[in-house]
Amino acid sequence: MKLVSFDDFQIGVLRDDGIVNVTSVLPDVPGPLQCYRMNLFIEEWDTLKPKVEKLAKEGSTVPLDSVKLLAPVPAPRKVYAAPANYHAHRAEMEAGAGGTEAAAGQHHSGEFGMFLKSPSSVVGPQDTILRPYEDRLIHHESELVLVMGKHGSAIPLADSLSYVFGYTCGLDITVRGPEDRSKRKSFDTFSPTGPYIVTADEIADPGDLEISLWVNEDLKQHAFTKDLITDCPNLIANMSWVAATEPGDLLFTGTPDGVGEIKPGDLVTIKISDVGEMSVPVKARTGPNPERD
Amino acid sequence: MKLVSFDDFQIGVLRDDGIVNVTSVLPDVPGPLQCYRMNLFIEEWDTLKPKVEKLAKEGSTVPLDSVKLLAPVPAPRKVYAAPANYHAHRAEMEAGAGGTEAAAGQHHSGEFGMFLKSPSSVVGPQDTILRPYEDRLIHHESELVLVMGKHGSAIPLADSLSYVFGYTCGLDITVRGPEDRSKRKSFDTFSPTGPYIVTADEIADPGDLEISLWVNEDLKQHAFTKDLITDCPNLIANMSWVAATEPGDLLFTGTPDGVGEIKPGDLVTIKISDVGEMSVPVKARTGPNPERD
Repeated sequence: MKLVSFDDFQIGVLRDDGIVNVTSVLPDVPGPLQCYRMNLFIEEWDTLKPKVEKLAKEGSTVPLDSVKLLAPVPAPRKVYAAPANYHAHRAEMEAGAGGTEAAAGQHHSGEFGMFLKSPSSVVGPQDTILRPYEDRLIHHESELVLVMGKHGSAIPLADSLSYVFGYTCGLDITVRGPEDRSKRKSFDTFSPTGPYIVTADEIADPGDLEISLWVNEDLKQHAFTKDLITDCPNLIANMSWVAATEPGDLLFTGTPDGVGEIKPGDLVTIKISDVGEMSVPVKARTGPNPERD
Repeated sequence: MKLVSFDDFQIGVLRDDGIVNVTSVLPDVPGPLQCYRMNLFIEEWDTLKPKVEKLAKEGSTVPLDSVKLLAPVPAPRKVYAAPANYHAHRAEMEAGAGGTEAAAGQHHSGEFGMFLKSPSSVVGPQDTILRPYEDRLIHHESELVLVMGKHGSAIPLADSLSYVFGYTCGLDITVRGPEDRSKRKSFDTFSPTGPYIVTADEIADPGDLEISLWVNEDLKQHAFTKDLITDCPNLIANMSWVAATEPGDLLFTGTPDGVGEIKPGDLVTIKISDVGEMSVPVKARTGPNPERD
């Protein structure tokens, strides 16, 4: 099943002929908390599933192009991410692809690396990436993103994939430099995700997917998730030992080699086999910068 | 006004004679989203304030020791933090107080430093700090914490304190080492906060507070927020330029010198003048560690 968030945090099932609005399966949620509807939907999935499946089959659709798609989880509680999790990307960073970043001693921390991105950096497939600096290196990183389905702490490796609700595409936009990763990767608009969640039952093996990224017409990244240094089950086991998972949490699994700069006017396209495809434009952010002004 | 979260995410006003439950000013919230009640309360504060003040004055109280106090904001959307934001702490870290950490090139990033802690690491004044490693250096850091009141992006410096809803005490528990700060400081239970929020109208100047921390009977940290390298108004302006604030967000302002190890059996007490005081015990975390096993 393909699930979307749209308009004012409505939830829909995406079919070939459009979107079936299934928000009615949820209880009323006060306005300012409606951004958490998808978190609630995921938390209650086992109960809601039969109802949603019936609605998805029988309900009438609205055309996909009549709605604004949001990030499928518009307000995750947290966004885990794996640093330098493909060998070829690690090698390009050590060779200087990140400018001065490698020299600044950013730690890869082997198979147990982890950092956080701000949940407020999450935007959707119809949003825009805003570059906060005109003169710093800002890179695209294409990543398979896990959408966590359950609460779990120190999740056993053998069970860990059963904690995944689904999968989506993610761009981990990154300012290169010596600052903490959790700052450089958390600017507003720096985590486009989407266009929808593919539920976990439709992905036989998250370690057997093909991931591609284009800037405009140029293929810049192309890799296979079988080449992840730490695979999805281990990422979940390791990270949930640090910070317990909550329904709707996102886990960015790391980017392959081929990272490069994105400039205002560019269109960044990510495609992951069986998971989805989205294209997000890049613009310059306007307004004052307290670091400079 | 002093505000607490207690029991099953109820909201209360703390008076000298006990707690007045004011949860009834909020609309119904579905069970799994009740952890966000305080976020909603803060977001709607301008509307709710007269009702809450009336209830706080006229309502009957329950004794403080009859409830379980939670973190005053049990589920912040994000937790900003400032690295090395007192000169004397920066000096002790450069002199080796953090073990190998300084040698690993952790970046201070001057007055614009920022990192994230996981919202899931937030616990309350009656919880316990769990040490995930027996054999690594794990430190206490005592910090003034701002509770953000409003949505804001690139908040102008002159207005920035008006975005603060209130203040609370925070412990930024930290594993020393070369990994990303956002991992080392995000283990479950690593962000005790509380015991309550003091609303901003009761703090004339967050740059004029005294902060102390004891491990058992020993005073380990003692400083004044006038010595913050980047003061509260600038922290808000700088960090909101990176990641827009949301009601209920926490901002840890940085720790003074005197950081040191905490061991199972210790009791860590933080006190901030006019803001509050809490004591949190330390235990060893049990169970497997995927990094070792």
